[in-house]
Amino acid sequence: MNKEIVKYIKAHEDEMLSVWMEEMKKNSDERSINILSNQVFYNTSKEFIDLVVSNILDTDEKFNEKINSFAENIVALGWPLTFITIGLRKLKEIIYGKMTSEREYTVEQINKLMVDLDLWMNPINDQMIETYSATWERTVSLQKIAL
Amino acid sequence: MNKEIVKYIKAHEDEMLSVWMEEMKKNSDERSINILSNQVFYNTSKEFIDLVVSNILDTDEKFNEKINSFAENIVALGWPLTFITIGLRKLKEIIYGKMTSEREYTVEQINKLMVDLDLWMNPINDQMIETYSATWERTVSLQKIAL
Repeated sequence: MNKEIVKYIKAHEDEMLSVWMEEMKKNSDERSINILSNQVFYNTSKEFIDLVVSNILDTDEKFNEKINSFAENIVALGWPLTFITIGLRKLKEIIYGKMTSEREYTVEQINKLMVDLDLWMNPINDQMIETYSATWERTVSLQKIAL
Repeated sequence: MNKEIVKYIKAHEDEMLSVWMEEMKKNSDERSINILSNQVFYNTSKEFIDLVVSNILDTDEKFNEKINSFAENIVALGWPLTFITIGLRKLKEIIYGKMTSEREYTVEQINKLMVDLDLWMNPINDQMIETYSATWERTVSLQKIAL
């Protein structure tokens, strides 16, 4: 089922990316994307979608590498953690909304789609929070040593 | 609809609390609940469920007060942020699972229940992350001043 979702995303990638970017712009605060150039915002958004898909297509090792590098970029850009967690949720809503609007689903199929999307997105969400928190914790302990 | 969900939770509070605590124990790591006494774990879990319900029953002011105090407690207990975010998700899954197992839902009703649960839980999730992140940011800037 996940392969099916990924195939779906891949086939509609440009459209999803642009819907997602619009949604995220609506939700931005002064700390986040408003201060970024359009090019940086586009590249980071594309990297974000690739990362989410990479969770299924790549090896765990490759995915972990990508998620670490992405989290470091996000911290360096000064984006708040909620930007990532809201971003994941919006992406899930967009995929769910598009898939269920295109054909009829039974209650069982809807439940299965929801479960699959959650099984896929939830660990990414948790790992993003862990990786992001770890960069904060590292800063605090480095500063403690320097004090 | 939210009032209906709250009524449902209130009527099954003890049962939900105990299912939720079991689920959270399964998901704990060495940093979190294993090092807490059962009493502290029970009290904090109860406070957590009350907080989530408070989002609907109390005023915004009262809720903000509760969420700030809860986030500070969590940081002081040394619980990771994922404990809260996973906790919210588990609670949603428990409520959804119990409600949909008790009577037949149509596709439209299932979608409505999901949307209502999300509209309720998502802002709590975001605010928890914001409040938790803010305590880290405060620590980092206090340390910077001291350096």
